[in-house]
Amino acid sequence: MGIMEKMNLSKHISGQFNAELEDIRNRVLAMGGLVERQLEQALDALTTLDAELAQKVIEGDHRVNGMEVSIDEECTRIIAKRQPAASDLRMIIAISKTIADLERIGDACVRIAKAALEKRVNTQQPLLVSIESMGRHATRMLHSTLDALARMDAEQALELHKEDAKLDKEYEGIIRQLMTYMMEDPRSIPGVLDVLWAARAVERVGDRCKNICEYVIYYVKGKDVRHTSYEDMEKDL
Amino acid sequence: MGIMEKMNLSKHISGQFNAELEDIRNRVLAMGGLVERQLEQALDALTTLDAELAQKVIEGDHRVNGMEVSIDEECTRIIAKRQPAASDLRMIIAISKTIADLERIGDACVRIAKAALEKRVNTQQPLLVSIESMGRHATRMLHSTLDALARMDAEQALELHKEDAKLDKEYEGIIRQLMTYMMEDPRSIPGVLDVLWAARAVERVGDRCKNICEYVIYYVKGKDVRHTSYEDMEKDL
Repeated sequence: MGIMEKMNLSKHISGQFNAELEDIRNRVLAMGGLVERQLEQALDALTTLDAELAQKVIEGDHRVNGMEVSIDEECTRIIAKRQPAASDLRMIIAISKTIADLERIGDACVRIAKAALEKRVNTQQPLLVSIESMGRHATRMLHSTLDALARMDAEQALELHKEDAKLDKEYEGIIRQLMTYMMEDPRSIPGVLDVLWAARAVERVGDRCKNICEYVIYYVKGKDVRHTSYEDMEKDL
Repeated sequence: MGIMEKMNLSKHISGQFNAELEDIRNRVLAMGGLVERQLEQALDALTTLDAELAQKVIEGDHRVNGMEVSIDEECTRIIAKRQPAASDLRMIIAISKTIADLERIGDACVRIAKAALEKRVNTQQPLLVSIESMGRHATRMLHSTLDALARMDAEQALELHKEDAKLDKEYEGIIRQLMTYMMEDPRSIPGVLDVLWAARAVERVGDRCKNICEYVIYYVKGKDVRHTSYEDMEKDL
């Protein structure tokens, strides 16, 4: 094979490889979009106590799971076939970690939807207003996280990383409110606990977003920032 | 380079590669051992309300985190340098997923230890007996999971996968017990909620063990069994 032929072949291979990376990125973003809709619908179902919508969310989770498994398979296939290094490898690792967190956000949606199906939640309507506001916050955070992921924007990822602390504060407020509720009316306890599990699931969505932001930073900066304080992360970037 | 020299070089490289794989396996098992001790001590701290031991567990978590980051780095380095395929690649993927779950079991230990520091838990001693029994169950499950991982034993992993359902049942029993407690004595609610968070953390340890068992099966059988029913898994193996 002449040198020109070799160069063409290697260009061809790298073109295919880029197309594969592009394809896998698109699939992760599609998975993110699906999870985002699941979260919106789960919160809608809970705040309007819409059993039909809740059922739809629960049944939709297998699609999220299926996407995780198939994207993960594709990541392994690409590593074995293309033997990527440096930033290509970091991209695939970031993707394979991201889908695990997206899948767990999917599980959180199921938990929220299940709370909507509990008959005893009905009596706790005023509490649902707080959850709704916290839920909207978490949905915005997920949307921006997917945005940072689509553009591989490390600065935005760092901003979002900070945002999670606000969601945690909101969650603590809700827990205090739920506690007061239960103490004032012990008969409400089982229903309030259902709301409490839903609030916890929403809070976990924020943690998962924070993880995904860390993978974006890892991809862009080539640095693992997990277990690092915000101040140290800012210094590094 | 003659053919004998090439063969020697390739033997040498594969010998180094095997040593690297062996080293990384040992490090995961060491991390598992550390997490196991953290869990035992966190449960001890909670059931005896030992603040000093609880503090020790909380401070020890950074070692678990550090092991996760360094093993993960080593996994990426090996993939980039050795370009492993087939079962070697599966081993590295299984390891990199396992350490993420071990790290989260570490977080669960911190949550249990923090409950031990809450002064208001003191009044809930009888409840702690139930948590102790559930905690012992979870500790055994973690120990056996690490055992299955050390021996890469897919059959044992499958058995353990079933075991988690029993832990879930125990957890549900504790939640019902906690609910009755709170309804009978509303002043106990804040303290009971602390115990409830600890119980939830113990229940999550079982879920993480189940995940690790799935990675062992993935390594041995080359099949991703996540989101698969127990019956289908048994058929496959």
